[in-house]
Amino acid sequence: MPNPTAAMLVIGDEILSGRTRDANMHHLAKELTDVGIDLREVRVVPDDADAITAAVKALAGAHDHLFTSGGIGPTHDDITAENVARAFGVPIDVREDARAVLQAHYDRQGQELNAARLRMARIPEGATLIDNPISAAPGFTLENVHVMAGVPSIFNAMLASILPTLTGGAPVLSQSMQIFRGEGDIAGPLGDLAGRYPDLSFGSYPFVRDGVFGAQVVVRGQDGARLDAAMAELNAMFPG
Amino acid sequence: MPNPTAAMLVIGDEILSGRTRDANMHHLAKELTDVGIDLREVRVVPDDADAITAAVKALAGAHDHLFTSGGIGPTHDDITAENVARAFGVPIDVREDARAVLQAHYDRQGQELNAARLRMARIPEGATLIDNPISAAPGFTLENVHVMAGVPSIFNAMLASILPTLTGGAPVLSQSMQIFRGEGDIAGPLGDLAGRYPDLSFGSYPFVRDGVFGAQVVVRGQDGARLDAAMAELNAMFPG
Repeated sequence: MPNPTAAMLVIGDEILSGRTRDANMHHLAKELTDVGIDLREVRVVPDDADAITAAVKALAGAHDHLFTSGGIGPTHDDITAENVARAFGVPIDVREDARAVLQAHYDRQGQELNAARLRMARIPEGATLIDNPISAAPGFTLENVHVMAGVPSIFNAMLASILPTLTGGAPVLSQSMQIFRGEGDIAGPLGDLAGRYPDLSFGSYPFVRDGVFGAQVVVRGQDGARLDAAMAELNAMFPG
Repeated sequence: MPNPTAAMLVIGDEILSGRTRDANMHHLAKELTDVGIDLREVRVVPDDADAITAAVKALAGAHDHLFTSGGIGPTHDDITAENVARAFGVPIDVREDARAVLQAHYDRQGQELNAARLRMARIPEGATLIDNPISAAPGFTLENVHVMAGVPSIFNAMLASILPTLTGGAPVLSQSMQIFRGEGDIAGPLGDLAGRYPDLSFGSYPFVRDGVFGAQVVVRGQDGARLDAAMAELNAMFPG
């Protein structure tokens, strides 16, 4: 059975202007690979209502899971929650359990749960809350869309809490080998090998080290014995 | 006049599996901001013909420029060039000027221009070559699509050679200010300010430092005097 598929939507002007370097995509990619969910597409869009809604519809419709990052804070440019609700045509309003979580947090901090902070308690109808152990304001899962914060420490914590609840497929195994030949010398034999192992994926990543050309060849698949067989052939082709 | 818009397409299984962390998106975002071209969307897709073709059509059709990264090497999984050609419905074949560049490069290296390497001389009909000062294999511009390598040093060099040929708008200026208050305390006044300066964009990026909550507020726009005025108001709102 093929693995479940996933997409990611990164939301935020600051990523597209180059002010902030996204860190969540790489983390999510590694974590999903470990649990056997195939990340098939990532999109980055600005803090724009139509762009967010259109991307949520397209990606949630095409994949088993959509993970979003960013745009759930208290400021005017945090518009992710309302546009995920809009994509599914459901209402959104302050929800009592989310308000209670925030109230307790700001009481502990001696800060006021004002109107701006209360925006973070707006949850689309039918959603399940995702716990935020760092700054309290929850994420949520609506249908197959998991809405999480953009701050990496919070994104990572939210992801850690939902990943065990998702059903993955077989984890993808990988083996790799450095070959100190130009990638153009490796390409022909590697392509032949890939043709004989259609159940595995073969990647080649060139490098130059101390003036010597080489490539890291990475073979990936779900069957360890097949991987071993392919790597043995690769070793025989490029000994040393 | 609004600035020209751009999109980016990152191509490669290795990004989506988490094996490699993309570095080109952040670099492109900064460079485009500097020359007054608005990066409006980024997509990351695997080494899959249909995914690449569909993304090229969608993004090239919606923006003034599309920049692609990855998939133009000599191996079987390098399928960007043929799918950019396919998106525009033009033929692709080995072109003599591209072959000559590669032949000269491999002659200097004492290596053979074999069939795999010759794949890198396949250029869609009507395209203009983009110089590759590092490993010779050229990128190309077809219509409004700029096809570049995924290796960051080569991507950066190719980008540097084409950026001066593109017409940008007014560079986007930015000013920022650290405010040591919880973001929820800043949100209300900041939203009001943003409402009075619709020509500027206001971003708020929360942080926690030594247990103190704060936010970096970034104001961006093309008119320096307007930026100064908004920052003066912001300073008056949050003195110290």
